Amino acid sequence: MNFVIFVNGLVLLFSAALMAVDALVFPDTAAAFGMSALLTGFVGMALTLSSNSSFENMHRLHGFLLTSSVWVTAALAGAVPLYLTTLSPVDALFESMSGITTTGSTVMSGLDSTPRGIILWRAILQAVGGVGFIVTGIALLPILKVGGMQLFRTESSDKSEKELSNAAKFASATLIVYLGLMTLCGLVYAVGGMSVFDAITHAMTTLSTGGYSGYDASFGHFQSPFLQWAGTVFMLMGGLPFAWYIRAFHRGSFRSEQVLMMLWCLGAVISVLSIWLTLTHGMNLFVALRLVAFNVVSVVTTTGYATTDYLVWGYFAAAVFFALTAVGGCTGSTSGGVKAMRWILLFRATKSEIARVHSPHSIQMLRYEGRQVQPDVLSGVIAFFVFYVATFSIIAVILAFLGLDLETATSGAITALANVGPGVGSVIGPAGNFASLSAPVKVVLVVAMYLGRLEMLTVFALLTPFFWREVIPAR
Amino acid sequence: MNFVIFVNGLVLLFSAALMAVDALVFPDTAAAFGMSALLTGFVGMALTLSSNSSFENMHRLHGFLLTSSVWVTAALAGAVPLYLTTLSPVDALFESMSGITTTGSTVMSGLDSTPRGIILWRAILQAVGGVGFIVTGIALLPILKVGGMQLFRTESSDKSEKELSNAAKFASATLIVYLGLMTLCGLVYAVGGMSVFDAITHAMTTLSTGGYSGYDASFGHFQSPFLQWAGTVFMLMGGLPFAWYIRAFHRGSFRSEQVLMMLWCLGAVISVLSIWLTLTHGMNLFVALRLVAFNVVSVVTTTGYATTDYLVWGYFAAAVFFALTAVGGCTGSTSGGVKAMRWILLFRATKSEIARVHSPHSIQMLRYEGRQVQPDVLSGVIAFFVFYVATFSIIAVILAFLGLDLETATSGAITALANVGPGVGSVIGPAGNFASLSAPVKVVLVVAMYLGRLEMLTVFALLTPFFWREVIPAR
Repeated sequence: MNFVIFVNGLVLLFSAALMAVDALVFPDTAAAFGMSALLTGFVGMALTLSSNSSFENMHRLHGFLLTSSVWVTAALAGAVPLYLTTLSPVDALFESMSGITTTGSTVMSGLDSTPRGIILWRAILQAVGGVGFIVTGIALLPILKVGGMQLFRTESSDKSEKELSNAAKFASATLIVYLGLMTLCGLVYAVGGMSVFDAITHAMTTLSTGGYSGYDASFGHFQSPFLQWAGTVFMLMGGLPFAWYIRAFHRGSFRSEQVLMMLWCLGAVISVLSIWLTLTHGMNLFVALRLVAFNVVSVVTTTGYATTDYLVWGYFAAAVFFALTAVGGCTGSTSGGVKAMRWILLFRATKSEIARVHSPHSIQMLRYEGRQVQPDVLSGVIAFFVFYVATFSIIAVILAFLGLDLETATSGAITALANVGPGVGSVIGPAGNFASLSAPVKVVLVVAMYLGRLEMLTVFALLTPFFWREVIPAR
Repeated sequence: MNFVIFVNGLVLLFSAALMAVDALVFPDTAAAFGMSALLTGFVGMALTLSSNSSFENMHRLHGFLLTSSVWVTAALAGAVPLYLTTLSPVDALFESMSGITTTGSTVMSGLDSTPRGIILWRAILQAVGGVGFIVTGIALLPILKVGGMQLFRTESSDKSEKELSNAAKFASATLIVYLGLMTLCGLVYAVGGMSVFDAITHAMTTLSTGGYSGYDASFGHFQSPFLQWAGTVFMLMGGLPFAWYIRAFHRGSFRSEQVLMMLWCLGAVISVLSIWLTLTHGMNLFVALRLVAFNVVSVVTTTGYATTDYLVWGYFAAAVFFALTAVGGCTGSTSGGVKAMRWILLFRATKSEIARVHSPHSIQMLRYEGRQVQPDVLSGVIAFFVFYVATFSIIAVILAFLGLDLETATSGAITALANVGPGVGSVIGPAGNFASLSAPVKVVLVVAMYLGRLEMLTVFALLTPFFWREVIPAR
């Protein structure tokens, strides 16, 4: 328990350091950010000093507490400067949670004239949230065995010390790849004509598949085809598994069922939608391809940038974008949603069920990336999927109870849960904004973004009585 | 293969006999029904005579062909008199498929002045479809091991002959219960003030959880609270497992997890919605209870009657009814949807996944109705659920492609797939009608109703190449 408090203190200290950086770079908002840094730093210091860094008494269940609490702490810390500059408490929390979970839904408008210190802060939240999620997903969730993530457990050893050292090695490799790609992205953006500030902030929100932009028109502010294609490519790179980059670098092997499946599906959807758009709306095929590719990749990788209001394309396009909202990128990337690994396993489990029609007594072992899938992985994936559908339905009904129309309620629920960003409909669509929603609605969406980012089970585990029966004596 | 053709011939002969009855009772439409009877009877005779009743060479896979084909044959036969009286070919097929699958979506309006011979025919389709589905679900699907239905396999023996004789015994007991409840329902309706014709036809469409009514105002035509409560009770009885009635009668045991769960859930939803309606709309609590109970039970049992346009209650009510559309009644009843047994297993599987957080190495066996659930049952249920979500999404996107708005496309897809009847929104809501939809949309919905009724896997199995590789040599 001590260690959990200690890490939360570190998160606050780290947040304070980032606020100080923001304060130093932009004098306009330096007062608010400086004040936030002091406040956050003070609390962080108090927490770290009143606890200690030893995790000798760490129980496995403390891992759940650790994972769940750091995301709340980070979101609260992130909200402080937003509150001290322009936003109401609820709006600040919404914007901060949307940032740290790399969702990208915004309650802010008039972004073009918003102080750049705030725009930078939103980008920082997403950049930090993105790498935080990869590390959570690859180093923590597999140990917690949540949602089938044990599939990614380092196999060589079950000893937790070795595992932790592997995790640390992996985390630093990930950070290098992440920062490397981000730098590359920023350079390409700058070459394509963005200002240095735009290039940096958009590189941060692209690779993190976050989707915050410094402009009300989102990425559509940049009307350059080159920049839009560059954005498409780098969003896609943010949606690929970071372990895949590392393996590709170390062993030169690019084989990955997840990546392959994602590319095939994206190719199919983009082709169909582009051709349909050309045929029905008389759009030039290359323009259609650019618009469709950008916005489809944006939704599937759960980035949430938009270059155009695709909802004006009609009901078919709206339905496709709605359906894509829940899909998600690859497991082990910064993107949310159900994600490719789970779709592959669900699809294979269902296929083997059809094959059973043929030979009812055969036992089929599922394989993934050439390895046999253990039954507990599959049941984790299934529990995730059932939870996902159930949580989505409950949140949508609550949102409707709070007064949202059906379209906004359902698409708002799914876009928050999958950490995408924009929804469907005139209110929260790509041309809309979350500002007009009521405070209770925003609070529900904050919870949905949080649940989605922590793959639900991590949080739900905390809500069971036996969890606390076990964890309290173990403190 | 011979036997499959033979049974389809019998279905046609049986349909012809029912058409002849309709022709004898209602002289207005006797010409059309007589003609249909002759036509259908002729084709039926040709099929039965050109095949034979021996099922010695029946391969298990022929069971899929048998199940899938009889529902198409019955729907086609049912459409003939509708086509010969008033409807276009597509409308006739829609109305017939909606009837035989006990969905209850209608393309007909001006029902109050429609010849009663046609109203009777719609009721006959649902009554026959209802019992046909129970028998399919309890006698055929368990042998085909589809969607976890092997849970209901008679356990005493695996020998197929014994199983068939058990199935036949069970089918006749079911028929007795079904007809008994239907008669009781008709008597109660008549006592409550319905005309004899209304009592008979509405009893047929109540117990089959079909929902066709002889009036444009659906069950709301009867403004008597007694009749509406009676309707609520008998719809509920149609949504309970028929095996439960038989067991209760034989052994005096009313224990059933499915029934208990359904009653609890219905009680909770009805209470919340009634209280909410009283508080927000100033409605009398007893009026609210009556309206909510009727319409909630109607949707959950997938009957589809309405006594009022509940969509005017606002977004919350609309969202609740939308969510309830997929729920379904009990397995082994006439209702569609995912159904209680599957929800229970999905819920338990997910719960045991949360428990694994606590003790990661424990192996938990799921139990259902006091018995251990075999892994193949659970994987069947999961495959069903994944297929359900996937099929729903694909159909909704196709409907949007065909020009429907998002609300109509999504609720149309789910109401057809779950065999409920009305959707949500102004077009196909409880106050609306499917008539205005285009022919391609109707065809898609016909396919959806068919897939939903056959629990999808039965049909999808036919679409795999290995199925035909196996079944063709086996003829």
